[in-house]
Amino acid sequence: MANETRKVMAVLEGKTVTPPPIWLMRQAGRYLPEYRATRARANGFLDLCYRPDLAVEVTLQPIRRYGFDAAILFSDILVIPDALHRNVRFVEGEGPQLDPIDADGIAKLTMPDVRKSLSPVLETVRRLRNELPAETTLLGFCGAPWTIATYMIAGHGTPDQAPARLFAYQNRKAFQHLLALIAEASAEYLIAQIDEGADAIQIFDSWAGVLPDEEFRAYAIAPVKRIIDLVRAARPSAKVIAFAKGAGYNLKHYRAGTGADCIGLDWTVPLDFAAELQKDGAVQGNLDPLLMVAGGEALDGAVSRILDRLGHGPLIFNLGHGITPQADPENVTRLVEKVRAFKGGVR
Amino acid sequence: MANETRKVMAVLEGKTVTPPPIWLMRQAGRYLPEYRATRARANGFLDLCYRPDLAVEVTLQPIRRYGFDAAILFSDILVIPDALHRNVRFVEGEGPQLDPIDADGIAKLTMPDVRKSLSPVLETVRRLRNELPAETTLLGFCGAPWTIATYMIAGHGTPDQAPARLFAYQNRKAFQHLLALIAEASAEYLIAQIDEGADAIQIFDSWAGVLPDEEFRAYAIAPVKRIIDLVRAARPSAKVIAFAKGAGYNLKHYRAGTGADCIGLDWTVPLDFAAELQKDGAVQGNLDPLLMVAGGEALDGAVSRILDRLGHGPLIFNLGHGITPQADPENVTRLVEKVRAFKGGVR
Repeated sequence: MANETRKVMAVLEGKTVTPPPIWLMRQAGRYLPEYRATRARANGFLDLCYRPDLAVEVTLQPIRRYGFDAAILFSDILVIPDALHRNVRFVEGEGPQLDPIDADGIAKLTMPDVRKSLSPVLETVRRLRNELPAETTLLGFCGAPWTIATYMIAGHGTPDQAPARLFAYQNRKAFQHLLALIAEASAEYLIAQIDEGADAIQIFDSWAGVLPDEEFRAYAIAPVKRIIDLVRAARPSAKVIAFAKGAGYNLKHYRAGTGADCIGLDWTVPLDFAAELQKDGAVQGNLDPLLMVAGGEALDGAVSRILDRLGHGPLIFNLGHGITPQADPENVTRLVEKVRAFKGGVR
Repeated sequence: MANETRKVMAVLEGKTVTPPPIWLMRQAGRYLPEYRATRARANGFLDLCYRPDLAVEVTLQPIRRYGFDAAILFSDILVIPDALHRNVRFVEGEGPQLDPIDADGIAKLTMPDVRKSLSPVLETVRRLRNELPAETTLLGFCGAPWTIATYMIAGHGTPDQAPARLFAYQNRKAFQHLLALIAEASAEYLIAQIDEGADAIQIFDSWAGVLPDEEFRAYAIAPVKRIIDLVRAARPSAKVIAFAKGAGYNLKHYRAGTGADCIGLDWTVPLDFAAELQKDGAVQGNLDPLLMVAGGEALDGAVSRILDRLGHGPLIFNLGHGITPQADPENVTRLVEKVRAFKGGVR
């Protein structure tokens, strides 16, 4: 079946689809009992990412349950530093941990053979495209270089990624080298995902929101543009969603700066600004993930406001960040029904 | 000496002062050895806030060392929940802790007699106005209701204040009641600070950046407007700086919505947006506090960019968030010298 029947792909081409297609960031996750059951069969989180049989299963679970318009490869943004031999591990209840890197360590990094190192992930993509319904878009993804670098420098998550910000001020050249290397490896990885059957790609810059003015341009915009340029040089028709969480007003320059087809909006982006951004192309978002916990009238009201304001243009309905483990699967059902009932028409 | 000679006050009236006045959020803090020495004499952090002799001393220390154009009362935003009997305590290395409140607890809250409960803080304000140089602006402050409420609900700080966001979705009326009560108590507190000699007021909304569209209007804008309206009804010439950290594009409506004279800008607000906001009045900010750790060329470059872009209009130079314990006092000297050397003139 050709791409044209995949609604998410139509929106990525700038078309308005009514009702808008919907998927949820982290839709394969701990809020689903079937996910928890599959995860229990893996030897930790990274093992789940690297075992195609299990990764395919958890990717498909939310598609079976809700019929989302897109499936996103089950994996993690830190597989790239893992391929760079940074000893990534996920400790239950503590978040990811890596060996922190310094300027000397950065100088010693060499480009990994991504297709080889991450072959289990690529195998997952290949199997997914075969198993997914024809109308379901398959999204590949990677982390943005800035966000990946913040974890590589600190060795773990921090409240405002101060270690990487400080390192970048004090070691600008080494930091730029690190971003360039991550960008190149990520582009290779995304091209391989496309070759195995990913219809489109999302780049996650979860920590874009802590960067000042010039640093946003240098560390959030430029490396993502580099990835997109490299991917498009190899696969000219590649479609990309770029999600810079917390970027605020900086989103104004993000689409033109990076070349992304669609801009992901976190839940704090006000709808008047979102509508302004939508004039230039597709947007994705941006319901507060906590409404999947709260449900009720608060959920209904917020969904209506997003549809009223953004549903008449190119929109991929999504949350403004990943769904949380506390979410009630019934609220997801309610959300999908509400979005699918949207008829568009006169405003 | 009249207000007119106080540079910060001139900027709050919308005037351009060259070079711009400067002070730093958390300028009385752990980066200063003299602060650490005084703090060691107190029985914990709240005791330091409630002992006028010590609170006056730490407020004056950065003025003596750097000659900042404003002193800010040494206190904490959580003295309001403390006055509301929420058992506030500061545990070293763990941040503030309170007894978490629920809808029943909110229903039982009663307006505190702020002038009585917080009389030591007001005594500090009175003494400060007598001891400060005539040209130094004395700033009082309080926390914004949303930020105060996030701590009252969760009982401690959290990465994205999810407990308060969820509570507000599930208990909208109780939450609105809590905000209204905090706003009323805060207005009383600010009026008392003005009566004791505070020249102007800053309202800190440290957690404004986690709110979606409609909630930003309801929880960040409306309660701050309520405070400012109450303060101005009692003291018509009161000047207010409102600082909504992380508010991104929402700042566009923040000055008009709240009635604040000056908008505080965190370090992530890009300078093109800051310049747009400055067209409507004074702005304050917005150097990355980490540059007080990094120093060097990174510091010089960032200061120049802010001065070039915002120094030709009404600007109070400041950091974009509080100075950190790791800051080098020499870098603060370098910053003050650089700002004071700014000559304005043709762009």
